[in-house]
Amino acid sequence: MTMRAVVMQEGQLSVGHVPIPQPGPKEVLVKTLACGICGSDLHCVKHGPHLLAAARDVTGVELFDYHQPVVLGHEICAEVLEHGADCHRTLATGSRVVCAPFLLRQQPITLGFGGIDTPGGYAEYMVLTEDLLIPVPDSVPSDVATLTEPLAVALHAVNRGALGTQDVPIVIGCGPIGLAVIAVLRMRGIGPIIAADFSPTRRAMAKALGADVVVDPRETSPFDSWKAMAAAAAPSDLGRQTAMFAGYPFRPSVVFECVGSPGVIQQILAGSAPCSKVVVAGLCMEADSFKPTFAIMKEIDLAFCIAFTPQEYAEAFSLLATGRIHLGALITGHVGIDGVQGAFDRLGSPEQDTKIIIVP
Amino acid sequence: MTMRAVVMQEGQLSVGHVPIPQPGPKEVLVKTLACGICGSDLHCVKHGPHLLAAARDVTGVELFDYHQPVVLGHEICAEVLEHGADCHRTLATGSRVVCAPFLLRQQPITLGFGGIDTPGGYAEYMVLTEDLLIPVPDSVPSDVATLTEPLAVALHAVNRGALGTQDVPIVIGCGPIGLAVIAVLRMRGIGPIIAADFSPTRRAMAKALGADVVVDPRETSPFDSWKAMAAAAAPSDLGRQTAMFAGYPFRPSVVFECVGSPGVIQQILAGSAPCSKVVVAGLCMEADSFKPTFAIMKEIDLAFCIAFTPQEYAEAFSLLATGRIHLGALITGHVGIDGVQGAFDRLGSPEQDTKIIIVP
Repeated sequence: MTMRAVVMQEGQLSVGHVPIPQPGPKEVLVKTLACGICGSDLHCVKHGPHLLAAARDVTGVELFDYHQPVVLGHEICAEVLEHGADCHRTLATGSRVVCAPFLLRQQPITLGFGGIDTPGGYAEYMVLTEDLLIPVPDSVPSDVATLTEPLAVALHAVNRGALGTQDVPIVIGCGPIGLAVIAVLRMRGIGPIIAADFSPTRRAMAKALGADVVVDPRETSPFDSWKAMAAAAAPSDLGRQTAMFAGYPFRPSVVFECVGSPGVIQQILAGSAPCSKVVVAGLCMEADSFKPTFAIMKEIDLAFCIAFTPQEYAEAFSLLATGRIHLGALITGHVGIDGVQGAFDRLGSPEQDTKIIIVP
Repeated sequence: MTMRAVVMQEGQLSVGHVPIPQPGPKEVLVKTLACGICGSDLHCVKHGPHLLAAARDVTGVELFDYHQPVVLGHEICAEVLEHGADCHRTLATGSRVVCAPFLLRQQPITLGFGGIDTPGGYAEYMVLTEDLLIPVPDSVPSDVATLTEPLAVALHAVNRGALGTQDVPIVIGCGPIGLAVIAVLRMRGIGPIIAADFSPTRRAMAKALGADVVVDPRETSPFDSWKAMAAAAAPSDLGRQTAMFAGYPFRPSVVFECVGSPGVIQQILAGSAPCSKVVVAGLCMEADSFKPTFAIMKEIDLAFCIAFTPQEYAEAFSLLATGRIHLGALITGHVGIDGVQGAFDRLGSPEQDTKIIIVP
């Protein structure tokens, strides 16, 4: 039995037929209802060998075989079709679900970056780990439900920032992750929030999601905006403030790097106040350079992020499902399997699209 | 009135006469009894313009004028000679003291890196801030008392690491700071401790100060040693462990970078376990490069350090004075003012010397 899928192979996307995967023990077969296109999917197609080399360096294993077909897609909403062996069957056939994109096998697999027998959501069917399924109520559309995944990434990044309600955070880059970070900060009552992006469309979205000051970094430094806002707010307890900075007039900042390009970290080190924390959520695939003296003399903390815990994924879904966070405005388009190549082309321009959802 | 001093000017050291400084309000004039030569002093002489440019970039101000005379020295023990205006005079003339090397003026000054009117300890006399003075009991020799400063740096670095007693720390580089980090970790009951240095002399010192496993990184990876030790220890609660690393067999590590050369941070990113913390205590003055993917995929925390708080300085002195930490073995030589140039030459070789104390 085969299914229709968008297949990536040697850096090319094409529509074809691949085998319908088989659920193993404690796994379910699902029908893909919706799947978001993530920036890392674009990375994967454009810079596959680079991503593979990086992952190999770090983990010692091959994420996938560049020369073999891979089915991308890890921002998913699906319908339960069939239970594998040893399932609890708590969620009956026909249940609509979201799921953290991990198969909890002996060797865990990240869905959307695996072999053809564990396809991601750019296909009609997938297998998921039953223990990770979360039921989706009727009130939550399938396309919105897929945003659980990027929201979980943002929630994890904010958790890594360990901010207090008195903090004045700065969000650099207002793509889907930066925008979701803004929404989480706003929901938690942390602010005022400063945000920066080159794109007018993205800046308007940042404002709509709760940023208080939104700047075009070509015209205004977000760090200058931060100084004005932070100076107006009550001074924070600097705690580990070193004598070297006794008398520094500003509180530490918490900066979210949501761009992922070389050089951005150094710009942030140069702009941040002493004792600041920088949460790096951007996925920079290239080598980067920085001047350690900036980080040293300011005693900066750099907290690098990827993914989230299953608990954070569940919390992210709860935030969407209960309406505490609204991210529907991020969705700027829907395509079928045949429209994925076109969607990839469109996503190159931040003025045109933010998040495009595949409905297989 | 003038005094003898080692003067640094345009990257050259010479012995000469400079004015005796005048204590301002809330300051005291002291006689320098002993002053340690710090690695940053060597940096300052060898790479002065580089250090100045870095400090200017970061702070926007000139640390000192490269073309004017500067008196180095911030690891000090001294004797109170004269009180300036508005002093409490709690410590009488003749008291032996240590002091965090900061003048708490309107614009704070780091002693040893200031103008000729605020000389460091490479001279017969200095001015210090009265509120920062700590009396030294007779049981603590003046040369040992100067080690309060590097011990405070190490204590601050360990505090930044926020380790638990179940952690298995790795110390990369066994110069004075790395050695002091080992002593603090041992004193706090944290371990086993892995240490690495190219020098056999430094490795022997690391062992003597409490490192459990000491390796020559040319022969044995400290990260391999760590894996063996960490696997034997009880597994730690990974807390924010992401699903990506579910099943990773080792606990996070806490790594102390005490080298300060380009490339070391990337080596540590490559060797460390996921979710590790890297405390950067080495003072790398050059641009550095790294591969963000290592830090991202492993969710590493980088905590950069310089200096310490006055509270940490006071605690460091207490640890030395009460004998909870013994660092006397670090002292491998004493010189007078005329011997400083020779001491700088000797400190280039880690086999010969670790810490040389100036007795003006």
